[in-house]
Amino acid sequence: MDVQSEQIDQLKFDSAGLIPAIVQDVANGEILMMAWMNREALEKTLATGKIHTYSRSRGRLALKGESSGHFQHVKEFRTDCDRDVALFKVEQVVAACHEGYRSCFFRQYDPAAGEWKTVAKKAFDPDAVYKK
Amino acid sequence: MDVQSEQIDQLKFDSAGLIPAIVQDVANGEILMMAWMNREALEKTLATGKIHTYSRSRGRLALKGESSGHFQHVKEFRTDCDRDVALFKVEQVVAACHEGYRSCFFRQYDPAAGEWKTVAKKAFDPDAVYKK
Repeated sequence: MDVQSEQIDQLKFDSAGLIPAIVQDVANGEILMMAWMNREALEKTLATGKIHTYSRSRGRLALKGESSGHFQHVKEFRTDCDRDVALFKVEQVVAACHEGYRSCFFRQYDPAAGEWKTVAKKAFDPDAVYKK
Repeated sequence: MDVQSEQIDQLKFDSAGLIPAIVQDVANGEILMMAWMNREALEKTLATGKIHTYSRSRGRLALKGESSGHFQHVKEFRTDCDRDVALFKVEQVVAACHEGYRSCFFRQYDPAAGEWKTVAKKAFDPDAVYKK
């Protein structure tokens, strides 16, 4: 996906140089994850068609799926009214979450029980894939 | 929706005391907006069943839809693997965006044209609703 730099210039990165990126399954609308991108991560995402993120904890660029092979192939790129959030619709290979779930949002609050409940089944075994 | 405080204690607010909140249409999976919540906004959201946000630009709590009547009624509350993002599935009254669109993500990048394109139709007239 070719993106001229003036298009990226219209996006608003925060004081740390980051923009939140929501990643949504293009097939069924499921929200897979939210990550952060710096300008380099965004440009690499657009140049390669694969989601790249900026890991705040590790302080570096990361290709999503680099160790697992669970890449996210970009099919649509949107921004919001304020141009300070990026939304990518993707084809997800296997699963997005490092805990083995297709979506990182596998915990739902159950008001009756007063607790978080896991509402998804694992799509892969993290211990096998990441070879701890 | 009743939420015990220890459940909220498990969520991770950032150094400014905020957590990103993605709001998704429960009916069709469309992502309506991303906003920020401080703990008070999150508690008011859960206590009332209507999305409340923390406006960083205005520095105050805001009931989404307060001036327009376009409330977002919470049907599901999720968090992600890191517990640092909130996801709400809602019933949206009329539209989420102050520019008149149902979703704030009405701008899509068109690689062929090299520009952002509006890919949605307005659901209401902002000038009439907000009485500028």
